[in-house]
Amino acid sequence: MFGSFMGQILRIATFGESHGPAVGVVIDGLPAGLAIDETLIQRDLDRRRPGTSPYVTQRKEADTAQILSGLADGRTLGTPLCVVVHNTDARSKDYGELLGVFRPGHADFAYHAKYGAPPQPGGGAGRSSGRETVGRVAAGAVARAILAPLGVVIRACTAAVGQVRAARLDWDFAAQDPLRCPDPDAAPAMAERIAQARAEGDSVGGLVRLVVSGAPAGLGDPVFGKLDARLGGAMFSIGGVKGVEIGAGFAVAQRSGGQNNDAMDENGFRGNNAGGVLGGISTGQEITMLLAVKPTPSIGRPQQTIGLDGQPRLIQIKGRHDPCLCPRIAPVAEAMAALVLADAYLAQRALAGAAR
Amino acid sequence: MFGSFMGQILRIATFGESHGPAVGVVIDGLPAGLAIDETLIQRDLDRRRPGTSPYVTQRKEADTAQILSGLADGRTLGTPLCVVVHNTDARSKDYGELLGVFRPGHADFAYHAKYGAPPQPGGGAGRSSGRETVGRVAAGAVARAILAPLGVVIRACTAAVGQVRAARLDWDFAAQDPLRCPDPDAAPAMAERIAQARAEGDSVGGLVRLVVSGAPAGLGDPVFGKLDARLGGAMFSIGGVKGVEIGAGFAVAQRSGGQNNDAMDENGFRGNNAGGVLGGISTGQEITMLLAVKPTPSIGRPQQTIGLDGQPRLIQIKGRHDPCLCPRIAPVAEAMAALVLADAYLAQRALAGAAR
Amino acid sequence: MFGSFMGQILRIATFGESHGPAVGVVIDGLPAGLAIDETLIQRDLDRRRPGTSPYVTQRKEADTAQILSGLADGRTLGTPLCVVVHNTDARSKDYGELLGVFRPGHADFAYHAKYGAPPQPGGGAGRSSGRETVGRVAAGAVARAILAPLGVVIRACTAAVGQVRAARLDWDFAAQDPLRCPDPDAAPAMAERIAQARAEGDSVGGLVRLVVSGAPAGLGDPVFGKLDARLGGAMFSIGGVKGVEIGAGFAVAQRSGGQNNDAMDENGFRGNNAGGVLGGISTGQEITMLLAVKPTPSIGRPQQTIGLDGQPRLIQIKGRHDPCLCPRIAPVAEAMAALVLADAYLAQRALAGAAR
Amino acid sequence: MFGSFMGQILRIATFGESHGPAVGVVIDGLPAGLAIDETLIQRDLDRRRPGTSPYVTQRKEADTAQILSGLADGRTLGTPLCVVVHNTDARSKDYGELLGVFRPGHADFAYHAKYGAPPQPGGGAGRSSGRETVGRVAAGAVARAILAPLGVVIRACTAAVGQVRAARLDWDFAAQDPLRCPDPDAAPAMAERIAQARAEGDSVGGLVRLVVSGAPAGLGDPVFGKLDARLGGAMFSIGGVKGVEIGAGFAVAQRSGGQNNDAMDENGFRGNNAGGVLGGISTGQEITMLLAVKPTPSIGRPQQTIGLDGQPRLIQIKGRHDPCLCPRIAPVAEAMAALVLADAYLAQRALAGAAR
Repeated sequence: MFGSFMGQILRIATFGESHGPAVGVVIDGLPAGLAIDETLIQRDLDRRRPGTSPYVTQRKEADTAQILSGLADGRTLGTPLCVVVHNTDARSKDYGELLGVFRPGHADFAYHAKYGAPPQPGGGAGRSSGRETVGRVAAGAVARAILAPLGVVIRACTAAVGQVRAARLDWDFAAQDPLRCPDPDAAPAMAERIAQARAEGDSVGGLVRLVVSGAPAGLGDPVFGKLDARLGGAMFSIGGVKGVEIGAGFAVAQRSGGQNNDAMDENGFRGNNAGGVLGGISTGQEITMLLAVKPTPSIGRPQQTIGLDGQPRLIQIKGRHDPCLCPRIAPVAEAMAALVLADAYLAQRALAGAAR
Repeated sequence: MFGSFMGQILRIATFGESHGPAVGVVIDGLPAGLAIDETLIQRDLDRRRPGTSPYVTQRKEADTAQILSGLADGRTLGTPLCVVVHNTDARSKDYGELLGVFRPGHADFAYHAKYGAPPQPGGGAGRSSGRETVGRVAAGAVARAILAPLGVVIRACTAAVGQVRAARLDWDFAAQDPLRCPDPDAAPAMAERIAQARAEGDSVGGLVRLVVSGAPAGLGDPVFGKLDARLGGAMFSIGGVKGVEIGAGFAVAQRSGGQNNDAMDENGFRGNNAGGVLGGISTGQEITMLLAVKPTPSIGRPQQTIGLDGQPRLIQIKGRHDPCLCPRIAPVAEAMAALVLADAYLAQRALAGAAR
Repeated sequence: MFGSFMGQILRIATFGESHGPAVGVVIDGLPAGLAIDETLIQRDLDRRRPGTSPYVTQRKEADTAQILSGLADGRTLGTPLCVVVHNTDARSKDYGELLGVFRPGHADFAYHAKYGAPPQPGGGAGRSSGRETVGRVAAGAVARAILAPLGVVIRACTAAVGQVRAARLDWDFAAQDPLRCPDPDAAPAMAERIAQARAEGDSVGGLVRLVVSGAPAGLGDPVFGKLDARLGGAMFSIGGVKGVEIGAGFAVAQRSGGQNNDAMDENGFRGNNAGGVLGGISTGQEITMLLAVKPTPSIGRPQQTIGLDGQPRLIQIKGRHDPCLCPRIAPVAEAMAALVLADAYLAQRALAGAAR
Repeated sequence: MFGSFMGQILRIATFGESHGPAVGVVIDGLPAGLAIDETLIQRDLDRRRPGTSPYVTQRKEADTAQILSGLADGRTLGTPLCVVVHNTDARSKDYGELLGVFRPGHADFAYHAKYGAPPQPGGGAGRSSGRETVGRVAAGAVARAILAPLGVVIRACTAAVGQVRAARLDWDFAAQDPLRCPDPDAAPAMAERIAQARAEGDSVGGLVRLVVSGAPAGLGDPVFGKLDARLGGAMFSIGGVKGVEIGAGFAVAQRSGGQNNDAMDENGFRGNNAGGVLGGISTGQEITMLLAVKPTPSIGRPQQTIGLDGQPRLIQIKGRHDPCLCPRIAPVAEAMAALVLADAYLAQRALAGAAR
């Protein structure tokens, strides 16, 4: 994971600024003969697309995936697959009055410190925008196609919005809920909490839960390539994620070993405090993660900040913004998990049984 | 971060099983002329060494670092530096009766699923043992030497043991406290909690806090090489870490944007909810992280598990084990942070100002 | 250099099949603020473009570079730069009768063995076509922009066509010669040799000479990242290159040390048998390389081969093919050298002076 | 291949200076269960060891391999394998009078330009010494163990010493010849040529031929990870190699396509001008390479050079040096080929059949 490149065997390189001509990804290290079509990629892109519900940003993007290489007759050639999505609705005029100002909670200051350029529309030279994740999601759809025949299912949902927390994990409900809430009983309160944030010109944080079922045991390469290390790093690479748990997560800090160890019997593990990973290697159980997502930094309320000249400025951000990032982050978390797992699976294919 | 290799410019490769002849590390990508001596590395190794207090495992290891290459007259040559520490006190007889049994909470089952070998003494083919971290700590000491002239200070402490939580951050106290507790008032209760766990033949989880001060703004390479992604992945690579926070961490989930955004004025940031990283790039503020550490899986109480034959077994683990891993993990967290930051710093040196 | 990815700090990922929709490249690890325009990239692409002289393939491609990301106002943002060139003249009907047949000297058989797919038009799933080099050349133009302020000049020419060898190295002449012959006296004979090959429905091999002047001393990272190892590997990654020399090359095999060692005096090196690299590190002298280029495998003469069914077939290849690859390979060799040198230069920037 | 690290799946990191305490290697990405013993590694180390014949340097090194990790009961654990060889006979006094002087043909000047350090005994901070290759050869022995069950045989020999060229390829003879000459008829003349060089206080260049038989078709990953690109880069990483050919090599430059293309019939390829690689992918034929090796730069004759002060110096190098490097380079070339091929083989295992 260096710059915009990641992966060992299945490698990707993403590109594109939110306010530039296009965003996309190059995927290398694919097996040949894998059935992929643009519909499959499009379906995942549609899930992360803005403008699909009243709860997410009203920016309209067709987000039509175009595959420039790597496919013939619906199957991978084994060559790099390039997916491009053109930006069609980049209204940078909305950002006009914010040029040269460091928006609080955004990457503007840090990007300026690093790259020397003035704050850009879209934030962070347009790479810290959620739009950057188009390439990840497209690649994730391809990674999923590698894992699907194994029975691996990767799902993420909005586990909480502010203090409203889902108490159940109903994946069917989440799949059709505009907020990806997995609890029919909590969904109305979540929607209300987001409506309230919007009404107040504010935003709200939340939690994203990720569950991977069907992952075979044996994935992950200690000690730096541990599966949880790679998944954890991948989740932190998603903008707005400030905390990551695996399995029982922070709860382990208050437990005794007798409480936390997952006992085994003839049917396997009796519990899953480990979250499906022990010693950095998958155990075959469900892999469970929880992500803490910060409230969208773009808010309509007045905020104190400074400009490039170091002078104080009071700003108010207009434009189209999701009051809560969770519904948008869920498909990105799925994509990142798919990329890490597919890469780990290919690495395991390389070595398992190679000594004869 | 693949297998036991990590890093882009500053690269390391660790090796060694807890019950094999030696553990160590090769460090490549070092600048020439860096002042390093074995004392400096030894000091950090001594901080992670077992047998230094009643609170940590009673295994005795001299842990004497031997530098096999890369140095002449106390300065780096620019060539790979290899540090080896021989294992001198590997009493594998303590594990005798556990051979062929999957210890709960340990890597035994996962390693067996991956590598096909029967459970090994030391766990996970000896690589999921805490002893593996010797190489990391030695390399971290070298990474620190790169960062020190910039004024970067990296410190970690035991922020909680079970429900006993430190309320203050007194680094001087932590430096001499056997548990690395940073709060003189909480230290006795922490010690008592650990003594209790030991008396009960059990263990207890905790929290490790990491604070980096003096890191320059501009470190980190979006989007997969974000500083928090790399730090987060590095922390999850430490055995026993089940949760990682940056800045405000999980608290952000319940906040509004107005509460969470760090406003700025002519003196810079007014708060640090971000934890020193925005958009994956350091802001020049303190970098703050919190790690959730699970209770030591090796406990003396009877535990239900299975053997290689799949049959149930009731086991009781003897041997020498830390009741709480936090004091041992703190120096490893420092080392991992040093390695990530030094690598990110060198990457920034490569590019900053390269366009003229 | 794995798959279609290469580079440590300056990293590239190329994509695109000759008969697919587009070819291109993603370039990551660029310094921000570098002046780049599409004209600059276009100029290099025009140099490798087919259809520009009677001596090269008559396929017509506009090869218009489109920059999808990474630039604003003619300067790099520090984010990945993506260049795409759409394929406009892919007449795959020319290949119709060759489908399912392994063309001698082509990648068809090897690609089939690896990817399981039937031989594709364009050869090797379209990635062993010369068209794949569009992405390399575009990236090379960007790499050159990094090196140019240092005074680094990278030039390649056609040193021989069959037995016709250039005796002089007149770069100005080569720059305007359609064959890139650097010797005005040899140019007519080279042209004649190529015309003869075409008339015979055959092709002819040749030599490409590469000279880098102005490269600073100190580039290259022993032992596997030696500058000559990286340059050598990069040159062998160009299709059709079967031999590579650095400095005196194969002539050293017949020399004594007294003859081959480059003595030094107060003005520096007295000779340059080393070719500008000693111990894998640049010396500041000219870096000189010679590449052996095989005759174009696509020839109009009848050839004996087999089909997918293993049965013998006599084939005759039609279509548009360069009788000699050297004029087309020269700009690719320049691009590869630029990429390796810029990456090595950035690595040296990272470390030189980092120990204080 | 960055610095002293190489490999994608099978990764190695070498370390050690010729005049430091030890040299060695860490090998990661090994399959578990591979039978390896120190004898096997030792046998290869003995083949590259100095002091084994009158024709190679008289330095005496036991070169006893010590395995510090990664093995239990003669089988790999899947964890990193570390091999260390201690230096026992580093007579740096021989170099005393050369300190601070740039020896012609050596890495001294380039290392000084890069690392700022004064010329070191052993050359290039001790990393451009032939002794550095101990780690490569040890790793190569392990890589060979991965390939052996496939029937892959990797052999290199001294194809020429100066103008004396072997006309036959008798591997059995080469295996026992102190110069690794594969031609019984040429062996006496080669020995005489070397004796002459020694008598004259001079050295002589030569050629090394490498032949890999039994490599399966399908290895190599276009476009930068082409098998020939990786082999070519690996060969150029060996000190003293100034030219590399694959298959027909430089001879192709004077051929027509009709002459050079390898026709096929129902028995497969009729020739092997390609050297076993087409489009960067192995064809299943023998892989054949030829390396041009420069004369040993350390010669006893007076040479003109300069010191650190830039002032001219006339030097005469004493000490123990091979008059011809070829017999020493042959086993290193085998090791490098084994490492590249084993890595490519594992990568192919990862992807072949992964799409179902």
